[in-house]
Amino acid sequence: MQALTYELLHEDKQTGARRGIIHTPHGDIQTPIFMPVGTQATVKSVTPEELKEEIEAQIILANTYHLYLRPGHKLVEEAGGLHNFMRWDRPILTDCGGFQVFSLSDLRTITEDGVEFKSHLDGSKHFFSPEKVMEIENSLGADIIMAFDECVGYPATYEYTKNSMERTTRWAIRCKEAHKNTEKQALFGIVQGGMYKDLRKQSAEDLVALDFPGYAVGGLSVGEPKELMCDVLEYTTQFLPKNKPRYLMGVGTPDYLIEAVLRGIDMCDCVLPTRIARNGTALTTYGKVVVRNKTYERDFTKLDPECDCYTCKNYTRAYIRHLIKAKEILGVRLLSIHNLRFLTKLMERVRIEIENDNLLEFKNEFYKKYGYTKE
Amino acid sequence: MQALTYELLHEDKQTGARRGIIHTPHGDIQTPIFMPVGTQATVKSVTPEELKEEIEAQIILANTYHLYLRPGHKLVEEAGGLHNFMRWDRPILTDCGGFQVFSLSDLRTITEDGVEFKSHLDGSKHFFSPEKVMEIENSLGADIIMAFDECVGYPATYEYTKNSMERTTRWAIRCKEAHKNTEKQALFGIVQGGMYKDLRKQSAEDLVALDFPGYAVGGLSVGEPKELMCDVLEYTTQFLPKNKPRYLMGVGTPDYLIEAVLRGIDMCDCVLPTRIARNGTALTTYGKVVVRNKTYERDFTKLDPECDCYTCKNYTRAYIRHLIKAKEILGVRLLSIHNLRFLTKLMERVRIEIENDNLLEFKNEFYKKYGYTKE
Repeated sequence: MQALTYELLHEDKQTGARRGIIHTPHGDIQTPIFMPVGTQATVKSVTPEELKEEIEAQIILANTYHLYLRPGHKLVEEAGGLHNFMRWDRPILTDCGGFQVFSLSDLRTITEDGVEFKSHLDGSKHFFSPEKVMEIENSLGADIIMAFDECVGYPATYEYTKNSMERTTRWAIRCKEAHKNTEKQALFGIVQGGMYKDLRKQSAEDLVALDFPGYAVGGLSVGEPKELMCDVLEYTTQFLPKNKPRYLMGVGTPDYLIEAVLRGIDMCDCVLPTRIARNGTALTTYGKVVVRNKTYERDFTKLDPECDCYTCKNYTRAYIRHLIKAKEILGVRLLSIHNLRFLTKLMERVRIEIENDNLLEFKNEFYKKYGYTKE
Repeated sequence: MQALTYELLHEDKQTGARRGIIHTPHGDIQTPIFMPVGTQATVKSVTPEELKEEIEAQIILANTYHLYLRPGHKLVEEAGGLHNFMRWDRPILTDCGGFQVFSLSDLRTITEDGVEFKSHLDGSKHFFSPEKVMEIENSLGADIIMAFDECVGYPATYEYTKNSMERTTRWAIRCKEAHKNTEKQALFGIVQGGMYKDLRKQSAEDLVALDFPGYAVGGLSVGEPKELMCDVLEYTTQFLPKNKPRYLMGVGTPDYLIEAVLRGIDMCDCVLPTRIARNGTALTTYGKVVVRNKTYERDFTKLDPECDCYTCKNYTRAYIRHLIKAKEILGVRLLSIHNLRFLTKLMERVRIEIENDNLLEFKNEFYKKYGYTKE
């Protein structure tokens, strides 16, 4: 029995954007979907109840690198797995630690076998191989787990990108062999290849030949221009099978979400909504509002006039600004709830617009209100 | 019409501990009561809904000094007062800023007229007089407001304490005259006099002659031994009228709460439950649990076996420890909810024990479980 299946319900007639359902051991996920990030076994500042009832999150993501270092995957396994440990009974996706090993840790050394790195917490030495990452992800027990990859930055040479991509594919084969819990956890392969289309094609075709239950597109939104991201993404998704879910990693601004869906993506994740909350910024229908700015000192209106989240139903910009200026936790909580709800609600709307073959019109309308000047 | 009345329902036959109700413009308060502190117009990390539904707080406290400096009392007044600004529709008590002016600010200069001080935020100069403090507290609009006093530290000379206490009484007269909103806000006088019984008697009698709707006992729990605190408190309360509420300021450990109630106190407040939450400590039936300690790394039991708060119903010590170690806001939230609920629930129990003339037996039983070795 397979851990995960994807059901394609409808394709937007103008664009090919996909409306579907992912069936997992912890329930169904309506796609396209935005996944809040719970790096350290908690979506920063909010409870599982708030995620379900206020934010209406269907799936959350957690980070293998962070949980391996603290509290340790064996401890999480003893707690009955990540779902039990953090009290979240809907689907979870764990990444493979590849991105963090390359971006957070010091002194990494890459070999064919894997990556040696130093912990960003205490400088201790660790080694991630495809087999080790599978051991960790099997202990954590997420519904969707990712194969170990190298996320190449931007810019990168053709030579470097090609070697790295080919190694990522060899690692994917080793992950598939090492994965112990195929009935309850679906392993996704990650397409790499940087900004080089022929490499993207080769990566996608090689991984598709391995018949993973789903595919991620990695190595995008790493600093390249938006147009280039869109171009490479659009080129890549054509090589992915229609009957499997597609996940664009690390994308979370409203415009990137819509552009990704327009190019056939089903799942996205990003720390953006909770990260900018901590800096006192809100995503709203009419663009970003830096509510910590003095402009909002005596603004007794709500964050977003078109939002009905817990924060917008109950609190003023002036109060939230005060909380953020005074470094009060409640300020971060209120902004996190709003920002996360803003993106889950945006994707609810996107799903409806796909069903109505209307995503392109919606995009234009949304961009106009939000204040995007092009695309 | 008076803003506040006190109804004495029952006195514990063995001890004289008081069971009563305070009637305020924002509803009734069952006493004795523990009041959570919302220094900056928020009880740290929790929402008004959590305060009502999970913690069952009946009244909260806010700090005049902090709100005057940030966001400013005029802004709060524009927002419709503190209740509206922070969205709390039950009673609020504001202190007078006296304690903060003396403990937080720099370079204070006391004269008969008032106190000049420098803000702990930006070093700017400010002046608090009894009239200024009444202006601020009237703008904030709490149901119970405190007269401006000097809180004398421990130890202090007889001479210093006497002069300060007499000035505090003269300031109380000026507060009474300056208070603009007697129909909606009840002004309490604050008994001072340090550890000197004759000064406590004089302070109480002088204030009682002014006929305030309630009285606070200030200048206790400022570093003196517990026995001395209990002795001075017991001596002081006999001079306070039975038909007015009595508030012991700044007391919040479980044993001090019970000792205060045994000596005729109706209201207490303290930052302790939320402050120790931020350090990873829980109050439990069996004493303090420093859950951030390694001992609890793999402890998959709940914080307090006898507690049914949101935190204890749902989370393990191991998970909370992980959150605190990883500096996750949710850890502080979960500990704050538990610690606040622990004290409000303790006082619920205390009210029942008074009704049953059984407070002394309950105290002994509670102390034994909690691990207090003496009085």
